[in-house]
Amino acid sequence: MASGDEQVMRNKQVILRAYVTGFPKESDMQLNTTSTITLKLPQGSTGLLVKNLYLSCDPYIRTRMTKQQSDTPSFGAFTPGSPITGYGVAKVLESRDERFKQGDLVWGFTGWEEYSVINATQIESLFKIKNTDVPLSYYTGILGMPGLTAYAGFYEVCSPKKGERVYISAASGAVGQLVGQFAKLSGCYVVGSAGTKEKVDLLKNKFGFDEAFNYKEEPNLDAALKRYFPEGIDIYFENVGGKMLDAVLLNMRFRGRIAVCGMISQYNLEKPEGVHNLMSLIYKEVRIQGFGVHNYYHLYEKFLETVLPAIKEGKITYVEDVVEGLECAPSALIGLYTGRNVGKQVVVVSRE
Amino acid sequence: MASGDEQVMRNKQVILRAYVTGFPKESDMQLNTTSTITLKLPQGSTGLLVKNLYLSCDPYIRTRMTKQQSDTPSFGAFTPGSPITGYGVAKVLESRDERFKQGDLVWGFTGWEEYSVINATQIESLFKIKNTDVPLSYYTGILGMPGLTAYAGFYEVCSPKKGERVYISAASGAVGQLVGQFAKLSGCYVVGSAGTKEKVDLLKNKFGFDEAFNYKEEPNLDAALKRYFPEGIDIYFENVGGKMLDAVLLNMRFRGRIAVCGMISQYNLEKPEGVHNLMSLIYKEVRIQGFGVHNYYHLYEKFLETVLPAIKEGKITYVEDVVEGLECAPSALIGLYTGRNVGKQVVVVSRE
Repeated sequence: MASGDEQVMRNKQVILRAYVTGFPKESDMQLNTTSTITLKLPQGSTGLLVKNLYLSCDPYIRTRMTKQQSDTPSFGAFTPGSPITGYGVAKVLESRDERFKQGDLVWGFTGWEEYSVINATQIESLFKIKNTDVPLSYYTGILGMPGLTAYAGFYEVCSPKKGERVYISAASGAVGQLVGQFAKLSGCYVVGSAGTKEKVDLLKNKFGFDEAFNYKEEPNLDAALKRYFPEGIDIYFENVGGKMLDAVLLNMRFRGRIAVCGMISQYNLEKPEGVHNLMSLIYKEVRIQGFGVHNYYHLYEKFLETVLPAIKEGKITYVEDVVEGLECAPSALIGLYTGRNVGKQVVVVSRE
Repeated sequence: MASGDEQVMRNKQVILRAYVTGFPKESDMQLNTTSTITLKLPQGSTGLLVKNLYLSCDPYIRTRMTKQQSDTPSFGAFTPGSPITGYGVAKVLESRDERFKQGDLVWGFTGWEEYSVINATQIESLFKIKNTDVPLSYYTGILGMPGLTAYAGFYEVCSPKKGERVYISAASGAVGQLVGQFAKLSGCYVVGSAGTKEKVDLLKNKFGFDEAFNYKEEPNLDAALKRYFPEGIDIYFENVGGKMLDAVLLNMRFRGRIAVCGMISQYNLEKPEGVHNLMSLIYKEVRIQGFGVHNYYHLYEKFLETVLPAIKEGKITYVEDVVEGLECAPSALIGLYTGRNVGKQVVVVSRE
């Protein structure tokens, strides 16, 4: 029992019921409204106690709802019966780590709950938020993991050159919309695909893509790509996988580069689709590179120096899809896999 | 008609009858024994007239027997009714290019015929043979295109480090046997697969691989790879594609590299097999790189400086499968696709 200044608070949580096969459903998660937390770090803890403000719905979360997963910690499988974990923005209530103090705002790995205890290991991938003259939710997106993913994936993995032809799938998503804008700032020709007319309009009219198309209206993806890239694709930013990757492989240019950020079309399949056109890699000397943002955290300050001014000057814009309340988190997450979100999917847990 | 010193000679040729679908047959090629050639460069030619000595049977040749192919010249489709072309060793009979003179020995692109006219463009990828104290046929293999392919593919594309775990498919072939030996010289742990007991014995006992297995005797390639690589594969040298690649993807280590040299299992299929495990690229940040030897020709002298002494000192060995006579070329080529050859497949057209 809590005593003295130790306050016991309700701590709503989103729990994974059991490992998921196939398409995830809201009912794979459960909102626990009765759990509580003592607002005091346990004795011996060297971590942080935080209040969660914004949570990030990211496609890769689905891959952690399945037991068999990689040994990379941030991609490790969830524990059924425990809260979902993921990126978020939080406020420090108590700190036993000298790098953080009460009242600090941070972004990084946290739990899908109102309050979380961040242990010493998790702290290593936590960032203190220094710039608060932008929406705080941006630290789940453009200024957080997806933003650094777009930045590192495009500049570091794709090695873009001015005038190159860039194709981005899932282009209006949290990462894609930024990759397209980075590519335009780099003087590239940029085409994106998305799954609704509204998103295609965003790509062309808000994010400044040269062209955009609705892949759901294309009976032949190869033909669609040939229409927009008659001379082929230098850089493909891969968010989708499967049939899209197969069509792209037929349209890569000599020495083209494919940065594999995600494969959202595959996450819900029992067996991923077969990709048939890998022989193109040989003739065209194409490079495919999988990458994870956690290896580029050292670039974060440099990234902020580029992106913060660009946001303030209106050179880069960002679209979020914001839902209010932890109870909306399961539905918001599931919506990613049907493309219901428009832009970065954010869940507000608390606005302060 | 020839006159004066212009000698008219029989010029046997191996002709591609028509484009091939599926598995190639000897009857897709025709030996033309009645064609002739005037042993004098045509007026205005700036090329070479050569006598072909050794021809190289290489797996990629199959891909050029199909109409739809890449725009890379050396991978371009053959012309039905014309001789097959490919790498070979030849002697210069007449030269209009100051870099070559009568009597020079050369290796590079030539025709499957007794005599060939090498045009000015083709000359650019021709190498003069300076070291003749090794078997001349080596310039179709260890000292020619396959050798440089192994060297560039392993050292440049795979960036090997001492102690890394290397897997090579089609490991007793023209390229694979060398990659394995380079990897051993680099202090790597090396495992190869091949399709007969004889080849597996060669890998272990002649080429010094740490382990080798017969993939045809493995009902589960994933399990076989886990047996030899309990901690995973750092470098995969890909010669095979399809199911083998799929199994390898499940066994790559973090930041592993796959050099895609060829995919011989796929060349005869109407539709290449699907590869399902590409999501591993993301979690493990794996790089797949297609490459072509023609972009590494600038390394050829450096390559010779490494490999020639190693051959002479017995540090590197090479196994060839030699057939005598142009008439054996179609059968020798077809044999590649059933794995009948043991080591580098060479055709002797003439020994001087």
